[in-house]
Amino acid sequence: MKVLVTGSSGLIGSMLIRSLAERFDFSGLDVRVSDNTPDVPTLVADGSDLDAIMPAFKGIDAVVHMAANAPVETPWPDVLKNNISTTHNVYEAARQQGVQRVIFASSNHAVGNFEMDEPYSRIRVGDYEGLTPGEFKRIDNTVPIRPDSDYGVSKAFGEATGRYYHEHFGLEVACLRIGTANAQDSPVGSVRTFATWLSHRDLAQLVNQCLTQPLGFEIFYGVSDNTWRFWDNDYAKKVIGYAPLDNAEDYR
Amino acid sequence: MKVLVTGSSGLIGSMLIRSLAERFDFSGLDVRVSDNTPDVPTLVADGSDLDAIMPAFKGIDAVVHMAANAPVETPWPDVLKNNISTTHNVYEAARQQGVQRVIFASSNHAVGNFEMDEPYSRIRVGDYEGLTPGEFKRIDNTVPIRPDSDYGVSKAFGEATGRYYHEHFGLEVACLRIGTANAQDSPVGSVRTFATWLSHRDLAQLVNQCLTQPLGFEIFYGVSDNTWRFWDNDYAKKVIGYAPLDNAEDYR
Repeated sequence: MKVLVTGSSGLIGSMLIRSLAERFDFSGLDVRVSDNTPDVPTLVADGSDLDAIMPAFKGIDAVVHMAANAPVETPWPDVLKNNISTTHNVYEAARQQGVQRVIFASSNHAVGNFEMDEPYSRIRVGDYEGLTPGEFKRIDNTVPIRPDSDYGVSKAFGEATGRYYHEHFGLEVACLRIGTANAQDSPVGSVRTFATWLSHRDLAQLVNQCLTQPLGFEIFYGVSDNTWRFWDNDYAKKVIGYAPLDNAEDYR
Repeated sequence: MKVLVTGSSGLIGSMLIRSLAERFDFSGLDVRVSDNTPDVPTLVADGSDLDAIMPAFKGIDAVVHMAANAPVETPWPDVLKNNISTTHNVYEAARQQGVQRVIFASSNHAVGNFEMDEPYSRIRVGDYEGLTPGEFKRIDNTVPIRPDSDYGVSKAFGEATGRYYHEHFGLEVACLRIGTANAQDSPVGSVRTFATWLSHRDLAQLVNQCLTQPLGFEIFYGVSDNTWRFWDNDYAKKVIGYAPLDNAEDYR
């Protein structure tokens, strides 16, 4: 199975390629050359240029679209170019080249403003008093869009585009509202991360399931089995067999 | 109350200005000079240029944002520039200039793919057999986004941006999923329009209510009281006193 990873030199893109190298035939697309994934054939091109990225999609079975400006504070001009325009072009190139499936790196920030509400506003700062994990409603794939940033809006845009490309063109699409996947691969350092952590191996397994299980259009949360998670991961467990191994609580 | 209409030379923008001229102190913003609204002070500028449009927002109480490429078939490069980039800039200019309220011309096409499902797929072609108006569930403001086009995606984008600007910056925002408001102001000519028609006077009254009633962030459908409407308008009736006078059925 030939899988193109966009943003292949990035933190998550390169981690996925390393973790799943034995399962898939990877290629890369990135705006820069990098030492992160030296053995992967990579096209260096700007995602906002549809013609320039098109060759990378030829003969590909599935795309894992991670290319984006990742900081939630990314200024609008960069969001417009590198998240919105690039994401449209990735779906469109996939469609034109007959790619079957796109896994889109959405983000929890598409619904980030739920964290202004209780109990999430308390959990994110470690105020657990009177709360029992699993007894409050977790934020799931049916909630309305509530972006907390231009970045979050761009992820909502990518989900809407994915649904359109699925329903009109038959593309299979999974949107992953990824939690906190960080360089140190640990929840330590921020209280919120004990709720929101997604370990590298759990993310790799989630992407593996998205690539290999039957799929229409879906939105899944990317979060490890953290005791204090406030995003639902039962749906991904049920639909594609997501089987997280990690729980941030083990790092207290 | 000083109200800026973007797309003031367009079909709907100019109609609104004519219909509501005695109630509001209007100004215009458009990419072109036009004879449609000769008495309204209008800034001619491109919405994708934030600096260029900023002067139009000075001292304004509310913005009615109608500027966009309106055809559902609008190609992506125009959608990106004239719908997505311009819409972001309208919210941002409103925020920077302390405008209190934005009425955003969203579209039914943000959720247009529900029309692939029964009973909407039948109503839109006039196959009413066995159906009773009001006894099927109408598509309301709580359904998930299901765009039917890049244009529809851009409207979902504008709604997501509106919610973000409301929740983070306190802007009051109404998104109107406008049905079929056409030049002839009549449902005659297409079977679907007997479900989807929005008369000019009903649209003007809807916008008037959005401008004058208390508002947080809301999504309303813009549709007349058509017997066979498949979008909900009860919510707008309840929340802001929308009082449609027209029913397409009277034109059979």
